[in-house]
Amino acid sequence: MGAVRRKLTRAGLSGLLVTHLPDLRYLSGFTGSSAALAVTRRSARLFTDGRYTAQAAAEVKSAQVEIVPRAPAACAVQWMAAQAGVEFAGFDPAWTSVAELSRLKEALPARLRRSFLVPVAAPLVEALRLVKDEDELRIMGEAALTGCRLFEHLLGFLKPGLMEIEVAAELEYQARLLGAEGMSFETIVASGPRSALPHGRATTARLPRRGFLTLDFGIIHDGYCSDMTRTVYFGTPRPKERNAYHAVLEAQESAVAAVGAGVSCGDVDEAARSVLRKAGLADAFTHSTGHGVGLEIHEAPRLGAGQTMRLQAGMVVTIEPGVYLPGEFGIRIEDMVAVTRDGGQVLTPAPKALIEL
Amino acid sequence: MGAVRRKLTRAGLSGLLVTHLPDLRYLSGFTGSSAALAVTRRSARLFTDGRYTAQAAAEVKSAQVEIVPRAPAACAVQWMAAQAGVEFAGFDPAWTSVAELSRLKEALPARLRRSFLVPVAAPLVEALRLVKDEDELRIMGEAALTGCRLFEHLLGFLKPGLMEIEVAAELEYQARLLGAEGMSFETIVASGPRSALPHGRATTARLPRRGFLTLDFGIIHDGYCSDMTRTVYFGTPRPKERNAYHAVLEAQESAVAAVGAGVSCGDVDEAARSVLRKAGLADAFTHSTGHGVGLEIHEAPRLGAGQTMRLQAGMVVTIEPGVYLPGEFGIRIEDMVAVTRDGGQVLTPAPKALIEL
Repeated sequence: MGAVRRKLTRAGLSGLLVTHLPDLRYLSGFTGSSAALAVTRRSARLFTDGRYTAQAAAEVKSAQVEIVPRAPAACAVQWMAAQAGVEFAGFDPAWTSVAELSRLKEALPARLRRSFLVPVAAPLVEALRLVKDEDELRIMGEAALTGCRLFEHLLGFLKPGLMEIEVAAELEYQARLLGAEGMSFETIVASGPRSALPHGRATTARLPRRGFLTLDFGIIHDGYCSDMTRTVYFGTPRPKERNAYHAVLEAQESAVAAVGAGVSCGDVDEAARSVLRKAGLADAFTHSTGHGVGLEIHEAPRLGAGQTMRLQAGMVVTIEPGVYLPGEFGIRIEDMVAVTRDGGQVLTPAPKALIEL
Repeated sequence: MGAVRRKLTRAGLSGLLVTHLPDLRYLSGFTGSSAALAVTRRSARLFTDGRYTAQAAAEVKSAQVEIVPRAPAACAVQWMAAQAGVEFAGFDPAWTSVAELSRLKEALPARLRRSFLVPVAAPLVEALRLVKDEDELRIMGEAALTGCRLFEHLLGFLKPGLMEIEVAAELEYQARLLGAEGMSFETIVASGPRSALPHGRATTARLPRRGFLTLDFGIIHDGYCSDMTRTVYFGTPRPKERNAYHAVLEAQESAVAAVGAGVSCGDVDEAARSVLRKAGLADAFTHSTGHGVGLEIHEAPRLGAGQTMRLQAGMVVTIEPGVYLPGEFGIRIEDMVAVTRDGGQVLTPAPKALIEL
């Protein structure tokens, strides 16, 4: 809470409304689905409804809790407006709808409607969330290892003829048994020519006797997301397939090796992209190299071409180049990497050499 | 598309920007995760990126498709502004963030920035989605029946000592095998005293030798959500527990019987609430009686106290009263009901009499 107050002061604000749930959880510890947090330079108060009385009391340490019968965000804004010395309160325009902003303004006294609520120029809380502390890194490491364990389990389960949805079902079943709170996004199981779809959700298609299978999945552990991708082969790859796999693997390892505090996100992307360019596969790599991950599956930074943001120690990013040849096949390899002072620590140590099943 | 054009005309608009994905899917058939749809009185155009070229061509029938390298919504707005006769375009303020609106305005020529984009006073597309057509009712009926099949399967699986997460894992595994695209919300498995939590996500708590178990879950089938709740008992219920169960069941059946075209949502809520009031359980029924369901798990209408909206034939709503006695137990029973001209058709015909396991 101290860090966000320093940011408030630097932004010339005397209060901040926090409604985006991952931000709110990050600052207060509250995991319920309906709440608003008001932070001023002197105090912090979390507003939620009667369903969460017991839960808020147990979870929230850094703010007072007030149970309210009406919209928590409107109550939070009214409370800030009534505090001495709070002249302007920031809100996050990326997570406040046009309709919600109207409602919040209507909840204010008429004289404050035009001036009190100010959109923050840059996201204050998301900026804090970028760099993970020791506890967060421990939790994310555990989440990533659970992902690796699931992949290992699947290696003994996969066989030609299974439906993609059976693979997803098995994966999600085992994830639950390992204690996952849920999956961090819709599981991707894309086999044969479907592996050329970067976001191929599991269907009733059957795993081929010969061809690739891409598995991209993540779990939620203690609120934090994991994310990993492996591509395996059934049968013996054709030379073109094997070459493409090796190019993606080299691109992926090259980008992992490029990670380190002070390196620009664009340079990490280029480390992967230049390998695929040399392999004649530049056009087949249709997305960016990776993204931040944490309480949300997609967070800042974005590791794409030309991105100038520099990595900092404690950030956790994915490194996931891929190539997609429509109608033929696709390949993607993805690790989670924690940025350290002098490099990057791979959190997902599952094998990456081509596995032929 | 004809219906939304009539609504446009009535609202005095010459164009509409659709970015909320369920609305966009409803109007165009597109199921991808990044797109914007522009509807004018004369034509409709869907903007998406290169990942979705093949998918958009296959899915979108009622609009032209344009693949764009930049933000689809900005492209949609620019396209509308360039069409002859399009002076004002509506956008949905509930699904447009303050930041997104700024970006859309910046994408417009300077002379149009203040006037071109107009927030629609009432949601145009969500209003259309309220009443389901025959195809939608068929799909939702199938989704609901899959839910019932899952509940039946679980009756043979449940036993004291299992962890709640094992129950959720089994449920979600079987859902996948039955072809579900996913779960429509986080599965609720709340046993023993945890049944008193209206939103008790599955934990490592073990099913009791004596006590209630509440299962609240839904699947996604062809994009549409199902939603149902059953509460069962392990062992022999105490008189207080049995009485409470019967009160909830009577309240639920009373509200189902109250459903029909022309009936106000508040009256359906009152049908359930009055039964629980007579049973001395009014304070333990801490939420509303139900909600609309369709492409989203929570849609209009809301079946709560005082809601004046009237049901129409073709709406699909949940009827789910519950009672929650913190530290003791909770009970909820929920069906999906399709509103018909002269009543309601229960889409979830799973047994509701108290099951003792």
